[in-house]
Amino acid sequence: MDKALFKLSYGMYVVSSFSEEKINGQIADAVFQVTAEPPKVAAAINKENLTHEMIENSGIFSVSVLEKQTPLDLVRVFGFSSGRNKNKFEKFDYKVMENGVPILLQNSLAYLVLKISEKLDAGTHTIFVGDVIESNILKEGESMTYDYYRKIKEGATPKPAPTFQSP
Amino acid sequence: MDKALFKLSYGMYVVSSFSEEKINGQIADAVFQVTAEPPKVAAAINKENLTHEMIENSGIFSVSVLEKQTPLDLVRVFGFSSGRNKNKFEKFDYKVMENGVPILLQNSLAYLVLKISEKLDAGTHTIFVGDVIESNILKEGESMTYDYYRKIKEGATPKPAPTFQSP
Repeated sequence: MDKALFKLSYGMYVVSSFSEEKINGQIADAVFQVTAEPPKVAAAINKENLTHEMIENSGIFSVSVLEKQTPLDLVRVFGFSSGRNKNKFEKFDYKVMENGVPILLQNSLAYLVLKISEKLDAGTHTIFVGDVIESNILKEGESMTYDYYRKIKEGATPKPAPTFQSP
Repeated sequence: MDKALFKLSYGMYVVSSFSEEKINGQIADAVFQVTAEPPKVAAAINKENLTHEMIENSGIFSVSVLEKQTPLDLVRVFGFSSGRNKNKFEKFDYKVMENGVPILLQNSLAYLVLKISEKLDAGTHTIFVGDVIESNILKEGESMTYDYYRKIKEGATPKPAPTFQSP
């Protein structure tokens, strides 16, 4: 069963949100466009993650699309550490939008800012669906795929991810 | 706004279901794994499609993962024609599983059979979430990505797709 699931294709994203006190972001691969009219995007986020708590409370999240050349270090910081103890953005170029949500500028091809329109409890994860309220291309280039990250970059998968598999 | 959405990465899948009278399948790119324990997969399907009606009624769907070498003709048949007037599978190798759902064998790397556990009304599309009740690798190879299909194969996007954009 596990191996068939590995044939699904994904991009690599930093999904971010905020609270009154702080900003946070995390690596996510489970992101897709749901509808074209109006443009809506869905992301599956682990309930135990700080970003989940922030999205629940603020109703806002952003999706930053990582470029193929993104260094493993960036993926490690956003994917394998918790924002509860530190500001993950500190080491990288980023911007806080007018509504308070951060977007990653470094190694990011494009960003979307989303306002929650629907959500679905799917067990360990929530699927958040949001209306695209702002978006932009930051630079041209190829998106990093999960496949590329795993095979070429030999990257690991954090335990809270939908695609995590025990070694 | 539109261009940023095009930076999201997808695979290419045939999502299938059935009724008492017939089987049907359609091209989908909006498919992702939602949770690992238990393994659940989500697919966004246009409400106007026959496959949507069949999934609603049967509570079962399958996901066949298209390989990189999939000919455009197969994508055309499953993506640009309606199963209301014909059996799309007729021209291709396929198999009907014990529970009645068809899976594509031709140009397919793997399949998943899913039983609906949750669903979410997202406007023009429904996000169906299903427990993986069966899955298998059919052959080794690279998955077709939406990006590859659009850029290298110069494939078009059917109007009912989440990622459709007016020319």
